[in-house]
Order: sequence, then C-alpha cells, then structure tokens
Amino acid sequence: MSHTTARSIVQRYHRAWTSNDIDTAMDCVADDIVCRAPGIDLHGKEQYREFIGGFAPALTGIGDIAEYVDGDRVALFYYPQTAATDTAPAAEHFTVRDGLISESVLVFDRMAFGPPE
Amino acid sequence: MSHTTARSIVQRYHRAWTSNDIDTAMDCVADDIVCRAPGIDLHGKEQYREFIGGFAPALTGIGDIAEYVDGDRVALFYYPQTAATDTAPAAEHFTVRDGLISESVLVFDRMAFGPPE
Repeated sequence: MSHTTARSIVQRYHRAWTSNDIDTAMDCVADDIVCRAPGIDLHGKEQYREFIGGFAPALTGIGDIAEYVDGDRVALFYYPQTAATDTAPAAEHFTVRDGLISESVLVFDRMAFGPPE
Repeated sequence: MSHTTARSIVQRYHRAWTSNDIDTAMDCVADDIVCRAPGIDLHGKEQYREFIGGFAPALTGIGDIAEYVDGDRVALFYYPQTAATDTAPAAEHFTVRDGLISESVLVFDRMAFGPPE
C-alpha cells in the first residue's frame, strides 16, 4: 500500500459521499469497517452506509481546511456546509487496509449541526 | 521553521495543557492566536487561555490516536478523558509561525463532554 494509494482511496471516498454518491463512496469501504462517530460506534458497512447516507443529503458544499497522509493513514479537516452552519469543522482519521477504508474516527460537534434556527 | 520544530512546539503545548500546566502551554502560543473551537471563535491569547484553562482541570487522562506533521502544520487526534467520557475523540489542527502556535482548529463533540449522568 503506497501513500498515494491510501490518499487516492480517501479522496475518492470523500468526493463521492460529499456529492451524495453513496454507492461510489461505499466501494471504498471495507465490509468490516469500524467507525467511531459522535455518540455512536458504527460496525460494518451497512451501519456505516446508513449513517453517512443520512447526513449526505443535508450537505450544500464543502470547505477544505487540511489533508494529511502518513503511510496507510489519512486525515482530513473540512467544513461540511449545511443549512445550519458552514463554519463548524469536521475531522476524519482514516486507516486504509488492502485498498479499502477499514477504520475511521469521525469528529464533529453535533450541537453545531442542529436544525437551523 | 523545520518540521521537527513545529512538531516539538505542538508536543510541548499538548503535554503542558493536558497536565494542567497552563503557563507552559501558553508559552507556546502567539499573542494573536486565532482558534476555531466548538461554538466559539477565540481571538488572542487571553481568550484562548481562558478557554483551555477552563477545560484542563476536568481532564483525568489522555488517550493517543494519531499525530500528523506537514511543514508548519501539525494535527493531533486523541481522547480527552474526563468523568463524562473517555471514548469521545478530539482533533486539533495547528499552524505554527515563528516558533509559536498562531492558528488552531479544535474539533470535539460538545454533547459527549456534558456532565456525567
């Protein structure tokens, strides 16, 4: 697994789900993905798909902050823009194994993404 | 500014504030620091000190997840352990300028760090 490959997989995943193309996004994800998300630990692709698929339609845009790559690990910081906010950052820490995202730590502030006032 | 230096400054900062040594932590921070924190943008060292100093005493430990370095930028993912939770991650994206932390994007889920039930 080269650095480029881990990065390209995460970039493909990120571009897909943020365009609400959940099928392409899930092509980048291992069946046994484990994701620590705010308030919930997600186990397996079905549960992960449901979580991401539930949030993706609310996106109106993405603001990039930073990307880091270190071997098979990739980190993204970005602004998920929604009707509620475009200034609340999210951070994701991915581990890529055998060409698929196998672990994710997803950090955002749920309070900031509540319904618009 | 070498990569090692940016990393060493952020490590010094991180070790200090997570040990509730706020004075040492603030020695690593620029007077005009700008920090995007959950629900608030902090401007200047005084406001930043108040924010970090308010949270630090609640810490009971730290669980490391990952560290990334890219030039003058450093990212940390970790578990701030408190009475409320030890499984809610935080992510910080630092920019170091002239040997001091000048910008920070701090991400965590405020709901997870509420008072213990």
